[in-house]
Amino acid sequence: LAELHDNMSAVDAGEEMTNFQYLIYEVEGKAAKITLNRPNTKNSLNRELYFEVPAAFKKASEDPNITLVVLTGAGEYFSSGTDLNNLAHIPSRQQLKETCELGGSILQKYMESFIDFPKPLIAAVNGPAMGLAVTTLALCDVVYASDKATFMTPFTVLGLGPEGCSSHLFPKIMGYAKANEVLLFGKKLSAQEAKDCGLVTEVFPNRSFDEEVRHRVAQYSELPPQSMRSTKGIVRGWEKDLLKKVNKQECDNLVEFWQGKEFLEAAIKFVSKKK
Amino acid sequence: LAELHDNMSAVDAGEEMTNFQYLIYEVEGKAAKITLNRPNTKNSLNRELYFEVPAAFKKASEDPNITLVVLTGAGEYFSSGTDLNNLAHIPSRQQLKETCELGGSILQKYMESFIDFPKPLIAAVNGPAMGLAVTTLALCDVVYASDKATFMTPFTVLGLGPEGCSSHLFPKIMGYAKANEVLLFGKKLSAQEAKDCGLVTEVFPNRSFDEEVRHRVAQYSELPPQSMRSTKGIVRGWEKDLLKKVNKQECDNLVEFWQGKEFLEAAIKFVSKKK
Amino acid sequence: LAELHDNMSAVDAGEEMTNFQYLIYEVEGKAAKITLNRPNTKNSLNRELYFEVPAAFKKASEDPNITLVVLTGAGEYFSSGTDLNNLAHIPSRQQLKETCELGGSILQKYMESFIDFPKPLIAAVNGPAMGLAVTTLALCDVVYASDKATFMTPFTVLGLGPEGCSSHLFPKIMGYAKANEVLLFGKKLSAQEAKDCGLVTEVFPNRSFDEEVRHRVAQYSELPPQSMRSTKGIVRGWEKDLLKKVNKQECDNLVEFWQGKEFLEAAIKFVSKKK
Repeated sequence: LAELHDNMSAVDAGEEMTNFQYLIYEVEGKAAKITLNRPNTKNSLNRELYFEVPAAFKKASEDPNITLVVLTGAGEYFSSGTDLNNLAHIPSRQQLKETCELGGSILQKYMESFIDFPKPLIAAVNGPAMGLAVTTLALCDVVYASDKATFMTPFTVLGLGPEGCSSHLFPKIMGYAKANEVLLFGKKLSAQEAKDCGLVTEVFPNRSFDEEVRHRVAQYSELPPQSMRSTKGIVRGWEKDLLKKVNKQECDNLVEFWQGKEFLEAAIKFVSKKK
Repeated sequence: LAELHDNMSAVDAGEEMTNFQYLIYEVEGKAAKITLNRPNTKNSLNRELYFEVPAAFKKASEDPNITLVVLTGAGEYFSSGTDLNNLAHIPSRQQLKETCELGGSILQKYMESFIDFPKPLIAAVNGPAMGLAVTTLALCDVVYASDKATFMTPFTVLGLGPEGCSSHLFPKIMGYAKANEVLLFGKKLSAQEAKDCGLVTEVFPNRSFDEEVRHRVAQYSELPPQSMRSTKGIVRGWEKDLLKKVNKQECDNLVEFWQGKEFLEAAIKFVSKKK
Repeated sequence: LAELHDNMSAVDAGEEMTNFQYLIYEVEGKAAKITLNRPNTKNSLNRELYFEVPAAFKKASEDPNITLVVLTGAGEYFSSGTDLNNLAHIPSRQQLKETCELGGSILQKYMESFIDFPKPLIAAVNGPAMGLAVTTLALCDVVYASDKATFMTPFTVLGLGPEGCSSHLFPKIMGYAKANEVLLFGKKLSAQEAKDCGLVTEVFPNRSFDEEVRHRVAQYSELPPQSMRSTKGIVRGWEKDLLKKVNKQECDNLVEFWQGKEFLEAAIKFVSKKK
């Protein structure tokens, strides 16, 4: 816990993180590429990545030579969302409340780093995405997907609820009939289905995916940067206040869910399956 | 009129309706199934159904063993919306205003029973849907449709205007270009078109429709109920106040339309066709 | 400049324009048809058209025999948006600020004539559309497109930003993933792509396009006019205040962009290409 508090203080204080342990930060021309790099765990988000991703965004945001940013995953997966192996260490009841509240704060700040990111952000979904790795796509500006990508948010299966502003953004993007099948019932979408409902911009065959994305990124990163930044600012600005409110409410709800009976039962089931 | 006032008072007072005359209320596992049951009139909504449907929702809402609800129609039709045979009894000019205002109140409360329903609500659109039976789909959480289903809202044809919160929800779900063809011009949508514009979640062949829906309902009704209820609460919560305002405005507008010249002309045309 | 100020005063004073120089105003039954008529410049909007289109809307709005309006283009193009040949006459630095501010006011009023237009407005997109001719489609009620139509908004390419309320309406209609590829990166959409993302209602083969549109216009223009007007009023009413705010913000941003370095560089490139 103390370590997490230190990490949060460092981020709050605006200290620059220069060494990334679980992601790769590369510059290609005028574009920065952030690759989630835990392929052995399907690029799941461990506690460190909850700080490294916002730090990488900060670095790209402050570098005047970077005009846009690409977010992708190493290996076969995009990201499986929050690392559920954390569940294997369920704390004592006394620590539970504090741990959950801290987790809510970390998640809220992680999301705000997406909400506030000022430059165009392209998600290159190279493979399956789950949970938070799906919901944050709605805060990316353009989403390219390999035809091997799938999209799944099993919130209620786990006794939890929506995060990543998906309770507002998914109905806005897909309409309620599609959004609710995903959010209420955890329906898995194919890349084509995700495109049809507007979550994904375009789908490419897996074998040419990297090339198609690289081609577009190279071209778009040469566009006038101030125009792109200002355009993103006005497009996203109309609901930035609402998104922060949605994010806070979703995180507050999750703090309750994490302490609830339905999540405990799902976690026990999950852990006993692993053994 | 007196009878309608009594019905409304009973609903307001929270009295439980135990015998349904025009719908069937069944429990299958953890799901409640509400079947509109006036197949001879294409399951049109007569005055009684305007009270029975909210009463059935209330029953399902209060039963702790029920985790989700399915709404469907008996026979070949889903529902043809408000029963226009009521038009055959046009009251005296003196009674007209009072009848219209009462009608507006009844419609407003009917809609609120959809807006406020707290558990997942799946519409199983087994056949053609018209008018209010189409607009209320936007307040259902997931909408499955048979490929024999069609969707039509001939509001302006009848000299009327949008209800069921469709003036807000249809543009939100479909975009203006699709929503206006439906709301302004009464364009009939096929099941596939309704899916493409986001009103319908998925379309199944008519011969396997019941089985496909039953399979999903059985599976989804086993999900953690508190998570589903809370997820629906936050997903729908962001615009609940707006929906109540939209509903009231639409009902107020209809009270005016029902007393207007364009509706009178359409009603006379309708009645003379029937004879 | 003085001439433009005179034009604006005339529009503000509600004077009726009876002779149109760059558009054709025709009445067919109960429908008015407005045809942008500068086929040699791809029906680009010169300064006069920024006043003639609102004046034509005013005429159609005030004519009690007109129930709906069609907007289309003469020849092969729908409209290429603002006439960039104006760029060939870059004023002195002293006049630049005043010219830009006046341009912002003119654009703001042009857009308000779409936002406030009270009768159903059908766009018949007979060929390629660019810039403002694309964004204003989101304020038309129904959009029919020829399969030869294309849709492109190269705002950032020109060092500019979104207008026509597209910063709010495009994400609302298409979702962010589609809207941002168009608004941030200037991606050109085919007619089918524009239909799939909800900007276009229906696509017809070019050879039968006129006939298909004429058939629908004839039918829809016979619907009860007060119902259509009132339906449009409530459908668009929920966000009219927001749209005016969005429009003002977008125009204010453009006034800055027009004076900025990125636009100057793009304009110099454009002018030198023409020579």
